[in-house]
Parts: sequence; structure tokens; C-alpha cells
Amino acid sequence: MSIIEETIKRVRPLDEEAIAAARGRQEELTKPSGSLGRLEHLATQVAGIMGNPLPSLSRKVVFTFAADHGVAAEGVSAYPSEVTAQMVYNFLRRGAAINVLAAHVGARVVVVDIGVAADVGEQPGLVRAKVADGTRNMAVGPAMTRSQALEALEAGVAVLEAEMGNGIDIIGTGDMGIANTTTSSAIVAALTGAPVHAVTGRGTGIGPQQLLHKVQIIERALAVNQPDPRDPLDVLAKVGGLEIGGLAGLILAAAANRIPVVVDGFISGAAALLAWALCPAVQPYLIAAHQSVEIGHQVTLRHLGLTPLLDLSLRLGEGTGAALGISIVEAAVRCLTEMATFAEAQVAQASERRETSGAPEHAG
Amino acid sequence: MSIIEETIKRVRPLDEEAIAAARGRQEELTKPSGSLGRLEHLATQVAGIMGNPLPSLSRKVVFTFAADHGVAAEGVSAYPSEVTAQMVYNFLRRGAAINVLAAHVGARVVVVDIGVAADVGEQPGLVRAKVADGTRNMAVGPAMTRSQALEALEAGVAVLEAEMGNGIDIIGTGDMGIANTTTSSAIVAALTGAPVHAVTGRGTGIGPQQLLHKVQIIERALAVNQPDPRDPLDVLAKVGGLEIGGLAGLILAAAANRIPVVVDGFISGAAALLAWALCPAVQPYLIAAHQSVEIGHQVTLRHLGLTPLLDLSLRLGEGTGAALGISIVEAAVRCLTEMATFAEAQVAQASERRETSGAPEHAG
Repeated sequence: MSIIEETIKRVRPLDEEAIAAARGRQEELTKPSGSLGRLEHLATQVAGIMGNPLPSLSRKVVFTFAADHGVAAEGVSAYPSEVTAQMVYNFLRRGAAINVLAAHVGARVVVVDIGVAADVGEQPGLVRAKVADGTRNMAVGPAMTRSQALEALEAGVAVLEAEMGNGIDIIGTGDMGIANTTTSSAIVAALTGAPVHAVTGRGTGIGPQQLLHKVQIIERALAVNQPDPRDPLDVLAKVGGLEIGGLAGLILAAAANRIPVVVDGFISGAAALLAWALCPAVQPYLIAAHQSVEIGHQVTLRHLGLTPLLDLSLRLGEGTGAALGISIVEAAVRCLTEMATFAEAQVAQASERRETSGAPEHAG
Repeated sequence: MSIIEETIKRVRPLDEEAIAAARGRQEELTKPSGSLGRLEHLATQVAGIMGNPLPSLSRKVVFTFAADHGVAAEGVSAYPSEVTAQMVYNFLRRGAAINVLAAHVGARVVVVDIGVAADVGEQPGLVRAKVADGTRNMAVGPAMTRSQALEALEAGVAVLEAEMGNGIDIIGTGDMGIANTTTSSAIVAALTGAPVHAVTGRGTGIGPQQLLHKVQIIERALAVNQPDPRDPLDVLAKVGGLEIGGLAGLILAAAANRIPVVVDGFISGAAALLAWALCPAVQPYLIAAHQSVEIGHQVTLRHLGLTPLLDLSLRLGEGTGAALGISIVEAAVRCLTEMATFAEAQVAQASERRETSGAPEHAG
């Protein structure tokens, strides 16, 4: 586990000096103190992550990891597994929601085949990092070997570090994989101890009967495999997915390189939970983009101590919520770095702060 | 009241054919049905507003109306009135939060002096539409005459229609005016019947003693002036603000011209409430950008039947939340118009929708 151990060791606490400097500047900008709410906190967090009180987020990247899941054979999804590869082609032809939303926020999309159960082939824009042709069916045995799980994590690290050559200021996480809400529920149940029914949702729309079946399959997978919650790699191997392992590695590598991570929805949340279980120090590098419709996502975010930026009832994955979240983080940082100060703009500060709570009123 | 009456008459219901066509297309796009959540509803709403199933929102404008308030003399704000004019200069020099956020989302900012109590002068980028040098102190008598209130509404209509020459696909509303949360609370209390304390907040940061004083001033203004809730123009004249009247006129004109209106926070919300009281048909043209920290904003949005897109604890005004909201609406519309369909992308649909709730799972 040397690459992963080495990556974990490189994850340092946030830079308190940059945080203090960013906070100080927030008080000088032409707005009442605190009036930009969460935008001020976000900008300060990014300053601490990047170790720069005046950071820039111009180079934005969404990583969409794709893989198949053996458990799809149990009928937990309304779509056939073939759709994973079909959607990868759609990503590469820029026809999917993530392509549109990433373009909207000025982010590039890096598509990674880490375990699609089809030969997607050499494609422009595709990163080939296949660990296996999908996982095995976790309802009857481990989804992958321990060594494959480690390979998936390492692939995530390698993908991030290779892409750094093109420049990265902030990343978003994304996923594609038929049946991967099933896998994510299993991971979240295993790592948090929550009952399966409390972390299992309708994916993107199965009915109540199929949901019951999905819960039973996840319970069976946990009973058959007995993943050890104190050993995140064991959880990933037994009930995980290759794209989830890849995303967990990506998150670790981003934190090691002081890059803010905007975490998409439930699948990305499960990956973040794995990364956090392996390395609790990643927590301050994480920004939860949105609250997914999936009930397990709430449990995941609570466990991670994260509050989502958006609540738009998204349940698509791919990194779609992360793309929107990246734009809000960038907006926050631009306010910090581009707004005029009271002195520059010759605007009066509330000198007579009689008994204000530190935040004088001027508008709003 | 002829210009306003004529504008109100032009506000038509949304285009049901465009809505149906947009909804139909949503089902063909390469994503599980409904998986883009509120983004799908937003895009459909915009299609209905614009009467176009494939709308484009490339020309985005935030209107920031500035004016002063006589009630500032009562010490309801920690800032002196001079800051209104100083911030107008800051807007024109692009140093304020609204300039940064509008630039971030690709919107232009139109700054309107509708009642600043200082001669801002001829300035590049400033629309001069001054009705008066600020309002009078509503705690001792009407803030303005009925004819001034009407002029403010008409100025808002004129500003929108003049700017249409430069092209407008969507607008955001914004405000600047020391003491304008006080005015907005008075309007919301008058129009909704809510008690003053339930709609009055700490603005952008006054302490508990000053808040008590603010509530008393608003109660006195309502007692002295007795605004008639069945006559929105009377409410505007007696306890309103010139920028709030201007924004209400702007909103009416936008709806009359089938332009979606992204409403900022509490002050813009009070303006939207006035526009709605004058013309209930504006409601479907409105999109609430965010939930402000001000408690009166919740009452306002509930009254208008609007659910905010964002909840970032903003309390700045200027149109800052509206700018962020515009970007989300544009993202929604771009998904509708730019994503590939299942047929185009050769992606399998969930044909075997056994007992799905209409929304098959593929990712997330």
C-alpha cells in the first residue's frame, strides 16, 4: 500500500496563515461584514487549502470515473449494464449533462474508464485505467480482490497526478456505473453502521418492490462478505466499485496536492467517506456540492461533517452537481480577490458601530 | 396609471405548448427521467415564459436600483446615508460584489439612480431616472406622494424597455439603499398583515437593542400612515422606497415582455410582492434566487409561493444572489437545449420499466 500510504502522509492541515489573511481581507471589502454568508467561508477555506490568501480557480476539472458492477445481474437497476459504456461514449461526444454543465462553468471533463465491462477502446479524451471488466457480483462473494481495490485507489492517484500536468486549481468528482447506488449504499452501511434500509434509495427511480429487493441484495452482500469497517480497503474490495475506489484515490491525491475537492452526490459521497476513513485529514479539503435525493447521501454528509451548497433534487451523478458547486466556489473566491476594499473605493465604514454584532447594515 | 395599467394588461399566462414541448424533450435526453430535479422544472418554466421550447439565455442583465430613505434619520442602520452614493460609484467602477458576481456569470449590470440623495452626476454606465433625492421619513409621514410612487413604478418600466434595445433574455433584480431593509419590512408587514417583529431582521448586522428600535420605528410608520393593503400604490407611497417601486415596475415590464425574472433577496422580494399585489399574473415569471438571512424574506417568499434556489446565508442585496441564481437557470436551460437525446447518442432507454416510478436508474 506504499503509494496510498505515501499519498496519505502528504495530506497536511490547512494553512492557518492564509486563512487568517483571507479572513482579514473579507473585513476590508466593500460589503457589510459577513454579508456574503457561506461565500466568505468557502473563499477562506479555499485560501487555507491552497495556502494562498488570494487564490485563483481558473483551471477547473471534473473527473468522471466509469465502471460496471457485477451486482447489476441481481436486477437492482432498471437499466442494463451496457448503458455504462454507452454513456462513456456520450461523455466523449459531449452529449451528456456533465458535458453541458462543465462547459457552462468553464470546467473540462476528464473521463476515466477504470472498470467498464466492455472494450471502450482508444478514444480521444478518454483516460484508460481499467483495473477489471467490472466487479464481480457482491451478493455471492467479494466484488473484487484486495489487490484490485488497491489498484483502483492507486489508479485514482495516478489519474489526478497525470492531469496536474495540464493544470488543476479545483476538482469535481463524478461517476458513471449502472447499479452504483447499490454499491454506494453497501459501502455507507458498512462504514457508518447505519441499517441498509436507512441508506438505500430508489436510485434514479425504481419502484417500491424493486427497492425492497435492492435492500435485500445489499443485506445479503454484507452478510456474505462481512466487510470490516475498521479496514476501508476491505470494505472497498468486498462491496465496493472500481469507480468508487478510483474516486477515493483521486480525493486523497487532490488533498495531498492542496487542491480543493467538490464532491458530487451519493456515489461520490461514498468515495469521500472511503477516503476519509483511510485518511481523516482529507475532511477540510472537501466541499459538498449538493444534497442528493438519495437518502443515504444525508447519512454520508452528516458522517463527513459537510453541509451541501445546493439542494436542487438532483440524482444523476456524472459530476453534474459538482460542476454547479465548482462555479459557486469560484464565485466565492472571485469576491475575495476581485472586490474593492473600503479604502480603494472610498466608501465609509460603519465607524459608529454602536452595538452592532460586528456586521453593519448597508444594503439588503 | 395608464403606463402601469397597460403593462399589467400585457402580462399573459405562460405558453402551455412550449411547456409541453420542453417537458417532452426532457424525457428524450440522455438521463433518467427527472434526475436533474429542479433544473428540469426551471428549464420548463423558462420555456413557458419565453414561449420557446428551446430558449437561450445568453443575454443576462442584473438591474441594481439605488435610492435613499428618509427613515435612515431614525438610526435604523449602522451606516450613514452617504454610503448609498458611495456604493453607486463603487458599482460604476466595478468594485462591488455585484460586479464580480455578474462578471462571473456573464451578466451585465445596469445601475439605476432612481432616488439617491446626492447628485451622482452623469456617469458612464449609470441610468439616471431620479424621481426624488430620497424619500421622506416614513416615521413622521408618507415616504413619498402617490404621484412619486407611480413615477417610480413607471421609471422601472422605462428602464427595462430602454435596455431591451441592447438585448435581454433574463433579468436579475438588485438594490442599494441605506435603511432599505426597514422599508422592505414595512411593505411586507403592510401587504401580508404579518406582525412587524415577524418580518424585521438585523439587516446586515445591527444588535438586539437597535433591532427593537427598528421594529418600533416601522410600527410607528404603519400607525402614522395607515397604508391600505388593498391599494399597493398606497403602500409604496406611504412606507416604500423609490428603488423598491422601480424594481416593482421593472418586474411588471419584464413579465409583460415574457422575460424571466430572478428575484434577489429581501428588498427585491418586497418589490416582487408589490408587483404581485398589482398584478398576480406575474407570479409564474418569478424565480427566487436565494433564501436571505432576513426573516421577513421567508414570509415574502411563502406569500409569493416561491421556493428559493440557493441558501447561502447571503444578506448583501445589490443583486448578488440573483446573479448566482441566473447562472443556475441558464445551466438548466442549457441542459434542455444542448444535451443529446437517447436516439442521437444511441443509449439504451429503460425499456423494461417493470414497476419503475417513471424514472429509471442509470447513475447516481
